[in-house]
Amino acid sequence: MHHVDVIRIPSRSPGDISGLEALIASGRVAASDIVAVMGKTEGNGCVNDYTREYATSSLAACLGRHLQLSPAEVEQRVAFVMSGGTEGVLSPHHTVFARRPAQGTPVAGAKRLTLGIAFTRDFLPEEIGRRAQIEETADAVRQAMRDAGIESTGDLHFVQVKCPLLTSAKIAEARARGCEPVTADTYESMGYSRGASALGIALATGEADAAALADEAVLHDWSLSSGVASASAGIEVEHNVVIAIGMSARATSELVIAHDVMADAIDAQAVQRTLQALGLEGAEGLERIVNVFCKAEASPDGLVRGMRHTMLVDSDINSTRHARAVTGAVVASVVGHGMVYVSGGAEHQGPAGGGPVAIIARA
Amino acid sequence: MHHVDVIRIPSRSPGDISGLEALIASGRVAASDIVAVMGKTEGNGCVNDYTREYATSSLAACLGRHLQLSPAEVEQRVAFVMSGGTEGVLSPHHTVFARRPAQGTPVAGAKRLTLGIAFTRDFLPEEIGRRAQIEETADAVRQAMRDAGIESTGDLHFVQVKCPLLTSAKIAEARARGCEPVTADTYESMGYSRGASALGIALATGEADAAALADEAVLHDWSLSSGVASASAGIEVEHNVVIAIGMSARATSELVIAHDVMADAIDAQAVQRTLQALGLEGAEGLERIVNVFCKAEASPDGLVRGMRHTMLVDSDINSTRHARAVTGAVVASVVGHGMVYVSGGAEHQGPAGGGPVAIIARA
Amino acid sequence: MHHVDVIRIPSRSPGDISGLEALIASGRVAASDIVAVMGKTEGNGCVNDYTREYATSSLAACLGRHLQLSPAEVEQRVAFVMSGGTEGVLSPHHTVFARRPAQGTPVAGAKRLTLGIAFTRDFLPEEIGRRAQIEETADAVRQAMRDAGIESTGDLHFVQVKCPLLTSAKIAEARARGCEPVTADTYESMGYSRGASALGIALATGEADAAALADEAVLHDWSLSSGVASASAGIEVEHNVVIAIGMSARATSELVIAHDVMADAIDAQAVQRTLQALGLEGAEGLERIVNVFCKAEASPDGLVRGMRHTMLVDSDINSTRHARAVTGAVVASVVGHGMVYVSGGAEHQGPAGGGPVAIIARA
Amino acid sequence: MHHVDVIRIPSRSPGDISGLEALIASGRVAASDIVAVMGKTEGNGCVNDYTREYATSSLAACLGRHLQLSPAEVEQRVAFVMSGGTEGVLSPHHTVFARRPAQGTPVAGAKRLTLGIAFTRDFLPEEIGRRAQIEETADAVRQAMRDAGIESTGDLHFVQVKCPLLTSAKIAEARARGCEPVTADTYESMGYSRGASALGIALATGEADAAALADEAVLHDWSLSSGVASASAGIEVEHNVVIAIGMSARATSELVIAHDVMADAIDAQAVQRTLQALGLEGAEGLERIVNVFCKAEASPDGLVRGMRHTMLVDSDINSTRHARAVTGAVVASVVGHGMVYVSGGAEHQGPAGGGPVAIIARA
Repeated sequence: MHHVDVIRIPSRSPGDISGLEALIASGRVAASDIVAVMGKTEGNGCVNDYTREYATSSLAACLGRHLQLSPAEVEQRVAFVMSGGTEGVLSPHHTVFARRPAQGTPVAGAKRLTLGIAFTRDFLPEEIGRRAQIEETADAVRQAMRDAGIESTGDLHFVQVKCPLLTSAKIAEARARGCEPVTADTYESMGYSRGASALGIALATGEADAAALADEAVLHDWSLSSGVASASAGIEVEHNVVIAIGMSARATSELVIAHDVMADAIDAQAVQRTLQALGLEGAEGLERIVNVFCKAEASPDGLVRGMRHTMLVDSDINSTRHARAVTGAVVASVVGHGMVYVSGGAEHQGPAGGGPVAIIARA
Repeated sequence: MHHVDVIRIPSRSPGDISGLEALIASGRVAASDIVAVMGKTEGNGCVNDYTREYATSSLAACLGRHLQLSPAEVEQRVAFVMSGGTEGVLSPHHTVFARRPAQGTPVAGAKRLTLGIAFTRDFLPEEIGRRAQIEETADAVRQAMRDAGIESTGDLHFVQVKCPLLTSAKIAEARARGCEPVTADTYESMGYSRGASALGIALATGEADAAALADEAVLHDWSLSSGVASASAGIEVEHNVVIAIGMSARATSELVIAHDVMADAIDAQAVQRTLQALGLEGAEGLERIVNVFCKAEASPDGLVRGMRHTMLVDSDINSTRHARAVTGAVVASVVGHGMVYVSGGAEHQGPAGGGPVAIIARA
Repeated sequence: MHHVDVIRIPSRSPGDISGLEALIASGRVAASDIVAVMGKTEGNGCVNDYTREYATSSLAACLGRHLQLSPAEVEQRVAFVMSGGTEGVLSPHHTVFARRPAQGTPVAGAKRLTLGIAFTRDFLPEEIGRRAQIEETADAVRQAMRDAGIESTGDLHFVQVKCPLLTSAKIAEARARGCEPVTADTYESMGYSRGASALGIALATGEADAAALADEAVLHDWSLSSGVASASAGIEVEHNVVIAIGMSARATSELVIAHDVMADAIDAQAVQRTLQALGLEGAEGLERIVNVFCKAEASPDGLVRGMRHTMLVDSDINSTRHARAVTGAVVASVVGHGMVYVSGGAEHQGPAGGGPVAIIARA
Repeated sequence: MHHVDVIRIPSRSPGDISGLEALIASGRVAASDIVAVMGKTEGNGCVNDYTREYATSSLAACLGRHLQLSPAEVEQRVAFVMSGGTEGVLSPHHTVFARRPAQGTPVAGAKRLTLGIAFTRDFLPEEIGRRAQIEETADAVRQAMRDAGIESTGDLHFVQVKCPLLTSAKIAEARARGCEPVTADTYESMGYSRGASALGIALATGEADAAALADEAVLHDWSLSSGVASASAGIEVEHNVVIAIGMSARATSELVIAHDVMADAIDAQAVQRTLQALGLEGAEGLERIVNVFCKAEASPDGLVRGMRHTMLVDSDINSTRHARAVTGAVVASVVGHGMVYVSGGAEHQGPAGGGPVAIIARA
């Protein structure tokens, strides 16, 4: 079983590895124990956001130097999930997850944080946003739960997926083979990929029934969702990367995690409830937070609490950018700053217009 | 003395006048009593945002039909302040201010809301963002306070200014006369105009000393500011429009106003304090709110609560757009929805990175 | 039969009517003779571009004052087509079309410019981008040709359509009735509406066969197109507005029109050929141009002359904005300036990646 | 003396090194001979464009593997100049410059292409856009000319500079030391840095007099300029990188270069004249082009050929992005495709609104 350490390090730019170098140099974490890095990078978070790939490339090269591995080999053992877009007060940073064998004896009667990772195969362009991606993701989630030692979905608190998107080149390639992708709009493909990935998580957790998960359900049947799903699409992957985070009575980590679901993009109460679930109170409680993870989206019906919003008709700023600014600000106003992980596009991740929120804190 | 009514009406689009027509048709407000309209319109809130001008034009034409006046004549008697930008959950709307003579006897020992308006002369391009704009604004603020019957700065809670900006054409015109405007960057000119206007308010209220208000102070000496100033720049005016809102023991309005200052863009506590100052508690208290008015900006030092933000290095989205999304979300998370007035660019309006917040509520 | 005058007037801002007022004051054109105005306004040309509506509203109010008609009545007799987006060197302006009865005798053996207009009924949200819009547009094109006195499609040189788009509100309204619109992406709906409108033109001209024009053909079967179609979508209309421009031996106008098809967005040769077709040579020839009208788009296969372009993967700037900048610059480099009508999004308007170009010039 | 080879290779993404690897693998160029790479990357070309840094990082790592050098060591011997922004039809690519000792005997009476590089020291934030940057750049240009073996300014055809910009962090750092940078607007700092660098080139070539080059001249006195200057600002450097390209009777390269000056952004004639200067005619002539290099900008007076443009009042798209789309399209329409080097922001590089253009072709 596992002993997991989680460290949040600020980032000065997408290619900045000084924080990771310092962390390794400090001896707190061994390079070989790092199993996952979730980052917020300062690109647009949309199709042509290369800050995600640049950060992954830089971090993998850095770890590779420590481990005597090529960057490609590092990417096969570490789950890198870079989420672009630090609109508003969101502050670029990385969350490093290091995993060692259980240290000593678990605290009796107390569950502690654990995590596991998995990868799907590469997807064909026409599989993105459809049943194939749903099923492969579900398999990978189950595999990551086993890797984490999470024994039941009740102990699963957050599943992060990095998933691919469509580009002009991929669309053309598929069409040349006579296959039509789910959409010809590259930005819209991000939503389809996130949506199918989230439904894959819902399938794995039992939140959704396999029979309901037809191609047509993706981005249409908003009754289908997962309350622990967080999916981020990017140009830098062709497969899905999965990180499952939860609790185990056998884990010896000094950390805990809890989650809740934001009903809409400004649901500060859901963040408060998550703090309460972890017993975090006042300034001292906030100090114990390692990071907050949540999803944000522009409500697809064009309304937030009955008031019309303009995020979906704004042709200058994509709605995922608006949504990150909103939920990032709300979370920051509760926990005291913007160095939190807020990812945009919450299709089938929590209710329409809302999304899951999870907090990792020191026990 | 005055009896003031304030009504918030949703807007379906920048040219939508159906709400104003319905308000007048309802008999609650006489067209001839309307002295000011403050709106949030759904443009980019920057230089080429014509939704402000379109809304003003539509509203003035509507009132003109009721008053048998030309739109130009309406604009001479009504202070229209349209603030562009409804990023995130902000919801387009107008706040209509109607003023009648005092109705009956003032409530003994209780101050009530009052308001006044004033206009400066038109500014030359080279005057914008400089001493001339500061002084003319100060004069207009004093005039608006007199018009409102606000007897001391202690009773002044919010001063809204609409001010001009520089365009390529205006810059060229000034240069042709041998005069150099304060900046050649049209977007930056909005900040200069807002900053000088805010310093004019600070001069009128005594928050800043006349001797300190040299040209060089504008956008440089952040120690100079007003805690009641709210300035919005736009392509649709050549002069400053001033609305002074405060309290008077002689007013008979059924409304009150209080204000506070947000220390930074995510200062939810300042909004809470303002609610408390008005005695607004719980859901019932929130119901009594007519509207919230506040300013937002990206902290000029690049940090919010010590964490790096990227709003000032984002060349795709101007920082005022980010800032509105942030503070709009924070206010919405406190008061329950996004149909509030949040305006971007708080130069010399409250502390650097923060800004004033005011709430009008039913007494 | 008709005598048509066409005048291009610069615009200082979307609400500027000074040019139209001056034109009427000059006596060259009677307000009552104006049948169409095609404008380039300086918004983003996408969903939330209200400069189109503002310009139409301002122009209709201006004409209404001259004609003692309400703006709504003016919009029923004049075809206003505002195309947003003046990226790059494109210069905001209006092209005014005035039509009188034939003046004197037609020049023997010489065809001259004529034009007609028509309107479809309003479309339901779920009809946009589908067969209903195709068929209604085809009917309106035939009607506009009759109105113009264009006797055969060989004499038809340019058909301009203004067509509606989908908003969050319209999508929600359709879904509430159990009807699913063609897309839930508001920007993408513009392409569907333009595409269906262009196929309607192709149906009317015989360039496409009715049997081929199923819902599925729209934005999929790029072999279907019209070489005279120009469609522009906007938030300001619920129906299609059609302007048919061509030549007639019975017209007495002092103007002529010719058209060609640009094979791609940088096809300067097609512009040259159109000049040649009109016998326009050298500086004197360019002086005779009244205006150039053309369509531009980002090639859907992601390539221009074999080189990869990034317009379709740019999540900061929509592809129609890129395309207008490109083709506007190419046309300007040929005809000498950027005050030309270049509209973005050429789905089924000319070949994929290209689009029709037409030039009106003094005979 | 030198034998220079210049190869243009397409780029599939900012991190793509496959083209460089293939070039080296082909044997045409030895990794150790590469002295400069000029690239067009697909970011926004503005402040937060990390595609430039990512491309440089990837290329330097690639060359480092071939040369057994660290990336930092590679950057000390190779001049990398990445220019962001491939708006419109511009196609991402790299131009690789390899230099060997002269091969055989120069062709009698014929000058051939040569090139040299140099680097300035790092600049303090407050030096950017001011005299210090002008003078250091002038020194580096002289040094690069010597390195190239360019004997007179008459043989100098293109000087490319990569220069730094200001970020929020750098501005704060300077202010903490009591030093005020030339501007607090990060996007505007790019123009200042390009402008001062161009004036440094003008100083080195004698196009401008040292006495005229005060701080105040930068971005104000448009009469000062260089007809061979091309400067590109970026977040990835703290110093200026200089590449001087010209002709020498002693060079043995199989390439030639010529240049001209575009009077404005749509001056296709200047491109035609440059082709003629190189004797390039018809399709065969175009085939001999290796690459075109030019600068583009939005005319600061708001007019192109007397027509108002909106590039400087567009708060959604920065003017450099518009300008690249325009001039890229014009050049593409002349030379047949968009895989050319067009860089935005031509302050003091050619006349106001225009810019230098150079073409390298096979002799």
